[in-house]
Amino acid sequence: MGIAPGRLPPGSLNAITDVAGVRVGHTTLVQGEGQLVPGVGPIRTGVTAVLPHAGDLFLDKVVGVVHSINGFGEVTGAAQVAEMGVLEGPVMITNSLNVACVVDAVIDWAQAHNPAMGVTTWGISPIVAECSDMYLNDIRGKHVRAEHVIAAIEGAREGSVEEGCVGAGTGMSCYGFKGGVGTSSRVVPAEAGGYTVGVLVVSNFGNRERLTIDGVPVGHLLVGWPETAAVEPTSASSLARPGRAVEPARPQGGSIIIILATDVPLSERQLGRLAKRAAHGLARTGSFAGTTSGDFVIAFTTANHVVHEGPDLTYPMTCITESWQIINPLFEAVVEATEEAVLNSLFRAQTVVGRDNHVRYALPLERVVEIMHQYGHTHVKLP
Amino acid sequence: MGIAPGRLPPGSLNAITDVAGVRVGHTTLVQGEGQLVPGVGPIRTGVTAVLPHAGDLFLDKVVGVVHSINGFGEVTGAAQVAEMGVLEGPVMITNSLNVACVVDAVIDWAQAHNPAMGVTTWGISPIVAECSDMYLNDIRGKHVRAEHVIAAIEGAREGSVEEGCVGAGTGMSCYGFKGGVGTSSRVVPAEAGGYTVGVLVVSNFGNRERLTIDGVPVGHLLVGWPETAAVEPTSASSLARPGRAVEPARPQGGSIIIILATDVPLSERQLGRLAKRAAHGLARTGSFAGTTSGDFVIAFTTANHVVHEGPDLTYPMTCITESWQIINPLFEAVVEATEEAVLNSLFRAQTVVGRDNHVRYALPLERVVEIMHQYGHTHVKLP
Amino acid sequence: MGIAPGRLPPGSLNAITDVAGVRVGHTTLVQGEGQLVPGVGPIRTGVTAVLPHAGDLFLDKVVGVVHSINGFGEVTGAAQVAEMGVLEGPVMITNSLNVACVVDAVIDWAQAHNPAMGVTTWGISPIVAECSDMYLNDIRGKHVRAEHVIAAIEGAREGSVEEGCVGAGTGMSCYGFKGGVGTSSRVVPAEAGGYTVGVLVVSNFGNRERLTIDGVPVGHLLVGWPETAAVEPTSASSLARPGRAVEPARPQGGSIIIILATDVPLSERQLGRLAKRAAHGLARTGSFAGTTSGDFVIAFTTANHVVHEGPDLTYPMTCITESWQIINPLFEAVVEATEEAVLNSLFRAQTVVGRDNHVRYALPLERVVEIMHQYGHTHVKLP
Amino acid sequence: MGIAPGRLPPGSLNAITDVAGVRVGHTTLVQGEGQLVPGVGPIRTGVTAVLPHAGDLFLDKVVGVVHSINGFGEVTGAAQVAEMGVLEGPVMITNSLNVACVVDAVIDWAQAHNPAMGVTTWGISPIVAECSDMYLNDIRGKHVRAEHVIAAIEGAREGSVEEGCVGAGTGMSCYGFKGGVGTSSRVVPAEAGGYTVGVLVVSNFGNRERLTIDGVPVGHLLVGWPETAAVEPTSASSLARPGRAVEPARPQGGSIIIILATDVPLSERQLGRLAKRAAHGLARTGSFAGTTSGDFVIAFTTANHVVHEGPDLTYPMTCITESWQIINPLFEAVVEATEEAVLNSLFRAQTVVGRDNHVRYALPLERVVEIMHQYGHTHVKLP
Repeated sequence: MGIAPGRLPPGSLNAITDVAGVRVGHTTLVQGEGQLVPGVGPIRTGVTAVLPHAGDLFLDKVVGVVHSINGFGEVTGAAQVAEMGVLEGPVMITNSLNVACVVDAVIDWAQAHNPAMGVTTWGISPIVAECSDMYLNDIRGKHVRAEHVIAAIEGAREGSVEEGCVGAGTGMSCYGFKGGVGTSSRVVPAEAGGYTVGVLVVSNFGNRERLTIDGVPVGHLLVGWPETAAVEPTSASSLARPGRAVEPARPQGGSIIIILATDVPLSERQLGRLAKRAAHGLARTGSFAGTTSGDFVIAFTTANHVVHEGPDLTYPMTCITESWQIINPLFEAVVEATEEAVLNSLFRAQTVVGRDNHVRYALPLERVVEIMHQYGHTHVKLP
Repeated sequence: MGIAPGRLPPGSLNAITDVAGVRVGHTTLVQGEGQLVPGVGPIRTGVTAVLPHAGDLFLDKVVGVVHSINGFGEVTGAAQVAEMGVLEGPVMITNSLNVACVVDAVIDWAQAHNPAMGVTTWGISPIVAECSDMYLNDIRGKHVRAEHVIAAIEGAREGSVEEGCVGAGTGMSCYGFKGGVGTSSRVVPAEAGGYTVGVLVVSNFGNRERLTIDGVPVGHLLVGWPETAAVEPTSASSLARPGRAVEPARPQGGSIIIILATDVPLSERQLGRLAKRAAHGLARTGSFAGTTSGDFVIAFTTANHVVHEGPDLTYPMTCITESWQIINPLFEAVVEATEEAVLNSLFRAQTVVGRDNHVRYALPLERVVEIMHQYGHTHVKLP
Repeated sequence: MGIAPGRLPPGSLNAITDVAGVRVGHTTLVQGEGQLVPGVGPIRTGVTAVLPHAGDLFLDKVVGVVHSINGFGEVTGAAQVAEMGVLEGPVMITNSLNVACVVDAVIDWAQAHNPAMGVTTWGISPIVAECSDMYLNDIRGKHVRAEHVIAAIEGAREGSVEEGCVGAGTGMSCYGFKGGVGTSSRVVPAEAGGYTVGVLVVSNFGNRERLTIDGVPVGHLLVGWPETAAVEPTSASSLARPGRAVEPARPQGGSIIIILATDVPLSERQLGRLAKRAAHGLARTGSFAGTTSGDFVIAFTTANHVVHEGPDLTYPMTCITESWQIINPLFEAVVEATEEAVLNSLFRAQTVVGRDNHVRYALPLERVVEIMHQYGHTHVKLP
Repeated sequence: MGIAPGRLPPGSLNAITDVAGVRVGHTTLVQGEGQLVPGVGPIRTGVTAVLPHAGDLFLDKVVGVVHSINGFGEVTGAAQVAEMGVLEGPVMITNSLNVACVVDAVIDWAQAHNPAMGVTTWGISPIVAECSDMYLNDIRGKHVRAEHVIAAIEGAREGSVEEGCVGAGTGMSCYGFKGGVGTSSRVVPAEAGGYTVGVLVVSNFGNRERLTIDGVPVGHLLVGWPETAAVEPTSASSLARPGRAVEPARPQGGSIIIILATDVPLSERQLGRLAKRAAHGLARTGSFAGTTSGDFVIAFTTANHVVHEGPDLTYPMTCITESWQIINPLFEAVVEATEEAVLNSLFRAQTVVGRDNHVRYALPLERVVEIMHQYGHTHVKLP
């Protein structure tokens, strides 16, 4: 659409997978319509896996951190990441009530690949983050099962990333519109190392009134939209039909999970500095980190690996020089990629009808383009 | 035995339940013997529940904190406690691979008691901590089931607390001996408020060589014990028999979960100050917080309640005056009760034979008494 | 100018002093011109004091927190604030090399008012924050003296607050323009308590290219401005004259000190939640928190007082209910007031010529208005 | 005396200077007797400098962390250490009211050695920690001057370290006895790298009743000592004479500054893990970290250097493998060296008479030996 916040160029895919080796997999669960029957449906949920590399993540760990912007939510395994500074498995996102299932499935999957785990060495402490899709999904049904988790992990691929209503984003809402998965990337100039920063979000937060797109108060002008809804569904079973009740934007926000990947060589402290800048990008879209919003950043770098119980006394780590010429562009890259990933989660989502015929409308892109033009962003156009 | 570290008196039960209203429940699972058959047994595990009060913990929350001494482990729900400063459910402890099951069971139990949860208000983020009992237990079998969790919660009682090889402590080891559940309490002088501090631990850590009992280097003198083991089992199926192989103390430590309860009126910050002093008590028993030890303090005060989405604009909190005359005795109480709870977890445990005939001996109390005498603690005697 | 980010109304002064009782005092030091003679001048510096109330701050403390957005800088006394949760003196801001002098002066001033301090009770640990004004000021000269500190404290007043090139802001730069002191406030709706949030900043950070005013990329369009500078100085000795060399924006940013005051009853934890949202407002102006930027939030509430070594066993604290209806507007107020305070620090500053004829231009307001109009903000006009 | 807590051997000096390159310098100020005349004396104070290496610390920084055990006190520069992970100057300790003076003196000293500082690059943010020696010293007199600071830095030397009533320890008290400077070291086994951990403390905390020496409750048995004091002073002007009033131990504790040096290659995170274990050693001596005690650990490793604004894009760091075999002995070394450094600060101090004839007695070593024998430590003997 011509909306690319900031000054740095994206990678070739404009996705977290621009960081070499990173893989993303989704399992999307959409089934049933109409009245909520707990345990049966309607189902609008899923699970998303982000893998730092294609190898054995337990034996070949990557430097990682978890940063809490607002801790009203859960990221399992975060204490151990804080203590040890590494991720030792896939990063998983799902709905709030399926966290336990995903934890168990990741443990089982990891044990299957590492027979020594829990026998002669420690077990994995899985990283599972969550948002609540209870507005659209039969969340109490816990419809994500172990096989869905395995499918997301095993199906994770490099290359372009599906966005919008997929994986963990299937039932999520953002700024009173349909949200979900969004991704973006930035590449810093060659003199700052030419490194890549990639972000993938599952967005499920925000008051519509505050939605800001590249500085333009779009949300403010869409309060009350659509007054006379005549929205055309864009796919068969799960989308809105004219005449259905439109739910007001949930006022208290929900959550956002931000996965930050990079190929910059960073110590844990340095990676933590990058992770904190994600909040700056988030803020630019209109977030004030509402009280019940679980806003977390899970970050890793593929440039520093740590061998599991390495045989040597020491191991080498490479760190970036923290002069402003070198690290500031990386901070900017995080801000820009996060801002754009949130916007992409809105731009790529479609209207969804869920449990009890709850409707979450896609952001009306035509109207957005009009507003952007009205605010001087005349280069913006429909995709 | 006459071992009571410190200068403050215990409460009448010398238990966490000396804090009025606090309840403890255990489900203990012991089944099978001999060779490990994953998924079958032998089973030496369990689950322990600590409830801050008898009411609805979600609607009537208590001020709480989670403090990490060494974060190699998991306490689910900790991020939300840090953000909101309250516990809104029972505090659960189990083995490392049953965390997910316990999380799920607590959610189901809480939802059954709070139909609005996850429908018109947020869901519970359960607090579940863990230690690994893999040396004695078929941990991969995940033998703790939802009904065991419910039984521990529903069966929680005020009054005296079972210690040793019960609940989450069933399969745990401490300083190379059989550990498990231990509890203790301290009462501060009337001029400092007459408040009670209670501690319950599940101990599963430590190098035998460093075990220190009231300052005496007992562990150092028990290295290699028993050379010619002729230990009499104290109960039928699960205990050691002469001739069985004695495993050397696992050197890297495991974990310790410390539950700290009090009736002192404290803000979250003040409670956090108390929680940090638990490490001082732990250190006095010989801990150096080994690298793979998940050492956590989960603390709450029963003196400040927070109503779920309270109807009023504000709510009152009572804080303790932080002059040295008033708060220092509370710090001492935490140090002393923690030190003694760890010791009690050893004194009350019995020798256990677990998977693959692994034996974990109870601390040899007769020998301990001898050593204590040798080091001038002549008042110590067998219980 | 009609630029008022957000949706909430300001207080009557649109200043931190809208929070009843809060006082602000500045001492501004401007002297000399031309070549830098270390120890002599030119002097473009000062000191600013913010007092939570008019009483004895040591005996009658207020709940306070210090939050680090990027810790490349110094806020003295921060460890004690973190431990004890109170401010017990004035909040001071000055240049980076005068921190020690201000600490000493505050201690002397406090001891003069509290003879028991350091004799029968503990001494004050002053809160002094800093930014570097070395581009315009003879910073090595440490020209702020004890009498200037006392003058700022004793001269602190309620009512309207001087902004721009005053006090600690005298020599500061922001987004490549002249920065300094800015303030703003917001009032939340009556149903959320009608509370006031006030912010005062000393701004000294930012890349010009990223300056964003109410969403409009103003800085990007002012890169290189003024190519043919013909700026009229607005006061005699210290301002720019045509023909003087224009320094390019310092690329690595500097620092920002954000003082957040409120009359909301908050615990330390709750106040910390508000303080963290200041970063969201800062981010909206274009900050990415550059590596060498010392970005700190010093926050206090006037609604919860703590008596020094209070005679009673306990003291009451009032807390805000953290439902979204009540606390989210407060978060928004912090975001909005911070964003506007930064902008006001630019709008109210004048062009300054400092050491070695370094020139820091005021933001060219006419040009800003043109750009705002170009971006649809047609209501903006010159003040 | 034969008191060497733990199992690891000390380095050849049993001092922080066993870490190669580390230098310690003291300036000791003792002048006047009798009645306190503020600004005149009696003076019982000083300043201590610990230098990580002999080179330019600003250009050749070392990895460092500051850890707060109880934050009732000040360590200037700590925020920047947390952000950047390095120390870039000497570590200074002095009395509480001389912090500002020492900060200024370090800045001046550093600028004299680095002309670019504050001109074309950032200035130093000095690390200055403090304890209050107000019981013995005219602390309001601020008798430490810039020349004393420079003398401590410039006079810092490798080799054996003066302990007891020297430097910043001159006027300090510990467990109701005369405290001050203490140091110790430990060497881990060759298979764990053969690394050295050194600790230097300035001790000024603790309730006499709780003093524990290698597990023995010595303090408890010395409460009330000396009832009929007939103490022989061990040097002329500053020591106790029979008949002088004996002040009861100040009950609320004071502070302890712990400097931890090592040659282990560690990242900032890993160094932070070591630093946290100092509290375990401290706890073993009887500390509960009293409410008004400023207990801080300032740690650095000489094995990882960071060049100031290094010219290269990246720099290498070496990290220790965190398997239990390798890192646990380092944790033990920290615990043991800290415990012994605190004890040495007592063993090496002499009785001091200070302002208003306040007397702080040295620990009565003969009596201590008797008690140690009584508690089975029969190898202990007078030095």
